[in-house]
Amino acid sequence: MISEKRLSINFDKMSTITAPGQGITRIAFSDEDWQARSFVIELMREAGLTIRIDHFGNVIGRREGTNPNAKVVMLGSHIDSVPNGGNFDGVVGVLGAIEVINCMNEAHIENYHPIEVVVFMSEESSRFGVATLGSKTMRGEMDVHTLKKLVDKKGHSLYNILKLRGLDADKIDEAVYPHELKAFMEIHIEQGKVLEAKNTQLGIVTGIAAPTRMKVMINGQADHSGATPMNMRQDALCAAAEIILQVEKLAKSSEEFPVVGTTGIIHARPGVMNVVPGKVELGIDIRSIYMETKIKIVKTVMAKIKAIAEKRNLTVEITTLTNETPVRLKDEMINFLDTICKEKNYTYMEIPSGAGHDAMHWAHTYPTGMIFIPCKDGISHNPAEWAEMKDIIAGTEVLYTAICRLASKDKA
Amino acid sequence: MISEKRLSINFDKMSTITAPGQGITRIAFSDEDWQARSFVIELMREAGLTIRIDHFGNVIGRREGTNPNAKVVMLGSHIDSVPNGGNFDGVVGVLGAIEVINCMNEAHIENYHPIEVVVFMSEESSRFGVATLGSKTMRGEMDVHTLKKLVDKKGHSLYNILKLRGLDADKIDEAVYPHELKAFMEIHIEQGKVLEAKNTQLGIVTGIAAPTRMKVMINGQADHSGATPMNMRQDALCAAAEIILQVEKLAKSSEEFPVVGTTGIIHARPGVMNVVPGKVELGIDIRSIYMETKIKIVKTVMAKIKAIAEKRNLTVEITTLTNETPVRLKDEMINFLDTICKEKNYTYMEIPSGAGHDAMHWAHTYPTGMIFIPCKDGISHNPAEWAEMKDIIAGTEVLYTAICRLASKDKA
Repeated sequence: MISEKRLSINFDKMSTITAPGQGITRIAFSDEDWQARSFVIELMREAGLTIRIDHFGNVIGRREGTNPNAKVVMLGSHIDSVPNGGNFDGVVGVLGAIEVINCMNEAHIENYHPIEVVVFMSEESSRFGVATLGSKTMRGEMDVHTLKKLVDKKGHSLYNILKLRGLDADKIDEAVYPHELKAFMEIHIEQGKVLEAKNTQLGIVTGIAAPTRMKVMINGQADHSGATPMNMRQDALCAAAEIILQVEKLAKSSEEFPVVGTTGIIHARPGVMNVVPGKVELGIDIRSIYMETKIKIVKTVMAKIKAIAEKRNLTVEITTLTNETPVRLKDEMINFLDTICKEKNYTYMEIPSGAGHDAMHWAHTYPTGMIFIPCKDGISHNPAEWAEMKDIIAGTEVLYTAICRLASKDKA
Repeated sequence: MISEKRLSINFDKMSTITAPGQGITRIAFSDEDWQARSFVIELMREAGLTIRIDHFGNVIGRREGTNPNAKVVMLGSHIDSVPNGGNFDGVVGVLGAIEVINCMNEAHIENYHPIEVVVFMSEESSRFGVATLGSKTMRGEMDVHTLKKLVDKKGHSLYNILKLRGLDADKIDEAVYPHELKAFMEIHIEQGKVLEAKNTQLGIVTGIAAPTRMKVMINGQADHSGATPMNMRQDALCAAAEIILQVEKLAKSSEEFPVVGTTGIIHARPGVMNVVPGKVELGIDIRSIYMETKIKIVKTVMAKIKAIAEKRNLTVEITTLTNETPVRLKDEMINFLDTICKEKNYTYMEIPSGAGHDAMHWAHTYPTGMIFIPCKDGISHNPAEWAEMKDIIAGTEVLYTAICRLASKDKA
């Protein structure tokens, strides 16, 4: 029923819409992003959807319900990419959603609830340093001031970029999504390697983790590496090493719920062979889908950092860069998707999402479901990003079944 | 007897010969270096020395001995600097040596052994990446091929730079120092903070450490920091952290002789918050004045690195960048200088030199003495580099006494 041919043609077409270079480069609001958006709008029109564009450029394609005033069933994802990314991150959720509509058309299925397929603009943080801007706008978390403040590397403000794309940036407040949702649904590649490692075809997402991010500045003393005895040093890098290992150990030892802790950034100064590092900057990212667990680990990490600094007679400054609230997806939705996987005989597992997604902005308020499909070696945001068509089809089939049931009157 | 006034005037004059910017910038063979060299040549002439210039530009000022064929007593240091360095590193050894000659003149002291004051060119590695080039040339470790291969950041070869300075680079082989030495002597700032911490005015150097330097490339797996569970990671930075702490621990625990071990360089890639570091490069520097001790620690460090990599299922490549031989200074010379300090009532201690110096190139063959003076907070290679005049005078007085005795017939 899901058309492999149609999906393949559309993925192939999308893979050609990219700036030069390895992989896919469709930076938010770039010419390539806009070209891909036009292509998707065309697909949505062909699928019979009525297109609405909000003041942020988000594309909303509606399949009217037999009760136009019933709560909306929304599904979608994004088509922008990181520089030199892949053709699956986001795209699976958009092309999968359109395929769902095509299948409903072919099967002559009526929907009681209106269905809206959304292409969220600027999901990746690559251009403006902030992710899921389209979703944030629809949820009322955007204003003209912020649009003017968000500037890309070339100095262009998001405000001006919207204007250049013919969008009325001054009316951004009116881009708040106006309807109540019955449910939100998104298929996405896992961007991790758990499904692959467990040889499981689908992941039913249990929650979307949100990071707490810290910048840690360690101030020691830069001394000559030859002339300073070991017991007279205040080596900022040795302190950093202890901190890095503590972050790993504390995340590993979380007994309640899974936590991941990563030191992704390290800069040591002066950074030469013959000087003991006097200053080190660390960037630490701690995530869980359980806020309390995350807070507990973050507190312990901070205490350990201070203890290490004190022991080594160094000073540290810890700056909390973000402290976002993770979201648990509702058990009823997880069970609902589990059941469909079982019916369709797909291997599946429940899995937390470590990365953020457009879905998280709806999940706080509305029943939200996410379906993960495996990606090769867990690689994403990379030209080597790859998902198998059989898995895309499986995910789309589960999404199709879920949308049909959610949009029918019986399930209302 | 040592003239504070003369020394002060000369240090003040030297402090004005610098490229613009903070501190002293007298890069080897730059206009500033050449101007300072001219000033020092003038001082040497005023002190009655006969000037000889070799094909590398090294300045050799001779006070003839009553026996011109006797072994030479050599003393000296350098006047080039790192970018934004200080006015004491090297300069103390040059101005101190000239002051010694002035004092001998004023005291009408005859020398049986010829005395040669040397200004060694290009001691700092800042310009060509290799240190003590002038000394190496005098010791026969330089050839035309190497001169052509050594290139600064602007692409100028040392060969061409010498030619532009009117030096006959093609005859570099003839710049080998032609005489036998009775002794080599150098005063230098400590470039560490041991003397200051021990409240000691002079350091009698026991040996000059030489580094073994390693580049360690750790290859793990770059994964999404949110989507990769802790037990599925190959985090290159966590492995690096263990290595950094092992280097510190092994150096600290050296039971035989002092060793210092420093990880001065770290680069983690991709170096962003949301990716587990897949690749880390470390630069490790291990020093001792005892070759066997150093080799033992280096071997243990390498074994630990391999064990850490194996445990974490990562690969490592260890490249040995340099493995230089440290040099012990002779006990007779150390005792000789100790005795002079005692006679003059200076507080002193025996101390290894962690940094390399021109002296090390003579110490393998000839009795060599080095006198350290404290520098404020141990800071060197920095605009804040500072040495007290009273300490410069103390070091110069010990040098004066040593040179008078070494150059006299009785001590021959």
